[in-house]
Amino acid sequence: MSNLATMHPSEVRQLIRNNELVKPTSGWASGYTQANLAILKKELAFEFLLFCQRNQKPCPLIDVTEPGSPIPQLSAPEADIRTDIPKYRVYRHGELVEEVTDIVKFWNDDMVAFLIGCSFTFEHPLMNNGIAIRHIEENCNVPMYKTNIPTVKAGRFEGPTVVSMRPVPEQAVVRAVQVTSRFPAVHGAPLHIGNPVSIGIQDINEPDFGDRVTIKEGEVPVFWACGVTPQAVAMHVKPELMITHAPGHMFITDLRDERFGVI
Amino acid sequence: MSNLATMHPSEVRQLIRNNELVKPTSGWASGYTQANLAILKKELAFEFLLFCQRNQKPCPLIDVTEPGSPIPQLSAPEADIRTDIPKYRVYRHGELVEEVTDIVKFWNDDMVAFLIGCSFTFEHPLMNNGIAIRHIEENCNVPMYKTNIPTVKAGRFEGPTVVSMRPVPEQAVVRAVQVTSRFPAVHGAPLHIGNPVSIGIQDINEPDFGDRVTIKEGEVPVFWACGVTPQAVAMHVKPELMITHAPGHMFITDLRDERFGVI
Repeated sequence: MSNLATMHPSEVRQLIRNNELVKPTSGWASGYTQANLAILKKELAFEFLLFCQRNQKPCPLIDVTEPGSPIPQLSAPEADIRTDIPKYRVYRHGELVEEVTDIVKFWNDDMVAFLIGCSFTFEHPLMNNGIAIRHIEENCNVPMYKTNIPTVKAGRFEGPTVVSMRPVPEQAVVRAVQVTSRFPAVHGAPLHIGNPVSIGIQDINEPDFGDRVTIKEGEVPVFWACGVTPQAVAMHVKPELMITHAPGHMFITDLRDERFGVI
Repeated sequence: MSNLATMHPSEVRQLIRNNELVKPTSGWASGYTQANLAILKKELAFEFLLFCQRNQKPCPLIDVTEPGSPIPQLSAPEADIRTDIPKYRVYRHGELVEEVTDIVKFWNDDMVAFLIGCSFTFEHPLMNNGIAIRHIEENCNVPMYKTNIPTVKAGRFEGPTVVSMRPVPEQAVVRAVQVTSRFPAVHGAPLHIGNPVSIGIQDINEPDFGDRVTIKEGEVPVFWACGVTPQAVAMHVKPELMITHAPGHMFITDLRDERFGVI
């Protein structure tokens, strides 16, 4: 499977659809944009869409399906959102009830799928600029933290912004801001540089999600808005039914990462 | 009234609310973002929001009100969308039925107001970069054209992209791309540079909306996505009731233009 990195997204999705790849998708179909998934019933879709529109840094929408259609028409018109993700989580009233490899039996005409940008898209440009990504080096998940930065409320959706953290050498912090500013459609520039306490993070070694990573002498913690935010906020509303990807098991679109660079 | 340019948006809106300024808003409260208005009933709001999300270049959303609330909470929390625009247009089933200076009698709990970015926001940075704006020099409206560039359909909303055109000296075209690329949230980079026929414009001297402007020797027509697009598309759906600003009579927000620059 060493060629997963160089395969086209449609080939990788075919393997996923056949349940031959029930694993995290990091590094697959390199250069193509991967996305977080949130599926809600239409009744909540307007408010959730408005929430994403009002909070574009944590909730950058890549694609939203037509109500009832499982086809992500703009990002992967030959894909099926019900089968093409390696692992899904099904939540009822905010409680995780099941992990499954397809959601065909849960799908109905009343559903809207939201595909939300993911930090993978800006990690490659950072690496291309010589800024190593610690959680990739340490082969673990990115550390994520709840902050005291509120999101902007929309209808029933509200709550704190979740951020991801990457340690950056002091002399590379400016470049990290420049590089990620090019990608406003996938979290964009950092939300905060430096002191974690200023944004309500009491202990940098105790992330709320993901794993702790090493911060070396001369490195500064840099915080970006995180795509976990909309899921966390939606969960808070305890919708009757909500389906997401399992952490790390993303949807691979046909869109190239570079497409999201604004200049 | 020569101090209108230097007044704060809240002061200008107060004069507008008192019907003391029933005029186009260009140049007022300089440096603050002005916006196009489209009001629709909630029944159409999800589809229209989705349309804007899918077509961010022509439809950059600045603010969307909570259903039934006339307060643009994010862009001007002390304003009232029903009174603070100099002139409105009321459409029933796609037909203009009335021009009014407030819409209090039309407003009800079922309505959602969409404030959509406007090219004024990137014209100032162009001028600050030494690129003169011809329609300002010639004291007329910007020329706008229907193109053969389709928008991405969302529910009932679909139709061609409308563009605005500014002649730019050949040697300044690259800079014009750079400067406007900084503002993806207000139309962003041009959609097309050069030959109008390539995007379906048969006669550059016959704009579909606005006024013809002079294109001088050595100048290239540069086309940006235009905020008239969502209104044109919405009109096509012939909604029972739709309210917009009258052309040139914009909503003045409390947000500074520079806030929309991504880098």
